[in-house]
Amino acid sequence: MRLKELSERSGVPTATIKYYLRERLLPPGRRVTATQAEYDESHLRRLRLVRAMIQVGRVPVATVREVLGHVDDESLGLTARLGAATWALPQPPGADEGDEESAAARAELDRLLTELGWETAREIGDLSPVYRGLVASLAGLDRLGFPLTVTELAPYARQMEAIATHDMDLLDTHPAEAEQVEAAVVAAVLYDPLLLGLRRLAQEVESARRYGLE
Amino acid sequence: MRLKELSERSGVPTATIKYYLRERLLPPGRRVTATQAEYDESHLRRLRLVRAMIQVGRVPVATVREVLGHVDDESLGLTARLGAATWALPQPPGADEGDEESAAARAELDRLLTELGWETAREIGDLSPVYRGLVASLAGLDRLGFPLTVTELAPYARQMEAIATHDMDLLDTHPAEAEQVEAAVVAAVLYDPLLLGLRRLAQEVESARRYGLE
Repeated sequence: MRLKELSERSGVPTATIKYYLRERLLPPGRRVTATQAEYDESHLRRLRLVRAMIQVGRVPVATVREVLGHVDDESLGLTARLGAATWALPQPPGADEGDEESAAARAELDRLLTELGWETAREIGDLSPVYRGLVASLAGLDRLGFPLTVTELAPYARQMEAIATHDMDLLDTHPAEAEQVEAAVVAAVLYDPLLLGLRRLAQEVESARRYGLE
Repeated sequence: MRLKELSERSGVPTATIKYYLRERLLPPGRRVTATQAEYDESHLRRLRLVRAMIQVGRVPVATVREVLGHVDDESLGLTARLGAATWALPQPPGADEGDEESAAARAELDRLLTELGWETAREIGDLSPVYRGLVASLAGLDRLGFPLTVTELAPYARQMEAIATHDMDLLDTHPAEAEQVEAAVVAAVLYDPLLLGLRRLAQEVESARRYGLE
């Protein structure tokens, strides 16, 4: 398809597509004449991904380029490729402040991971920004006077395990590895508000069940 | 306890506590002399809640006052009180844009709620900012070229139902209704990043299980 059709099908203005091409967020089309290029379904898919990251995820252009580099890196195994792509996304702020609460939070999280049998996550540990973010969240709760115990956390983690299984089942429906990694990035950027909304709605339903609707 | 002890136990500087008192985010202590007041455990609990909303949830002071008004409103039934308090919290942006995608998203969400048996949520519908936010999220995904079907959404919603049950179980451990509503506000403000972090960690674990750790 030509640029014009790519724009119509994606809903992205041609000027924006040209900007993405210049910034190498989108691979060039196949040249057909000196001034025209031909694009295919992979361009459309990539364009949607870039747009989701920039518009909804507010991911900076340089970071988008880095994430896409991992998406396209065929030298990596699938787990590493998924990790690299999603770890490169902006993470919620959270640092180990080296205080008592951080040390306690880390010990608590490690106990939880052991109890769940998430040995991989324990082994990866601090290498993962997700692990570091969780340590920071737990320490923050403790500092604010709302500590969470392993017993309180474990049911949440088990539900999230079921959700992750569903996440991966959806990924597995994509035929190629690059598409799977793309889908993982989409899920990381776009599904979070949806899941949190469903949780809040479920709370309303459960509250009405327990205490009546008044 | 005196102001100084309240400050030490909460980790909140006395100047900040005085500011919260002036802004009526914290009820006044019991006067013991012309210049001194006595505070109790309810002040400490309220102080922690205010701090969590302002520091972590970045909730504006006027909104904190509104949320607390609902927390303390004993004229409401518990479901309404929980709803009022958490609905007053800042919501993720999301508006029904009145376009084709919004109408489709609304129909899809209603189908999902019927399938789940979440009739209460359907009845409350647009009154709930959470419902409106979900319509906006689903329409946004559709517009970006990543539509989600009821079949794909239902397993997520069922897991979130289990999570909401656990949420409400934790609330039920609090003896008084006011404390339950306080705990619901804490959970809404502080648990979201934690849940999302656990999901991401679970994905890493599940990916390593399926595709090996490489």
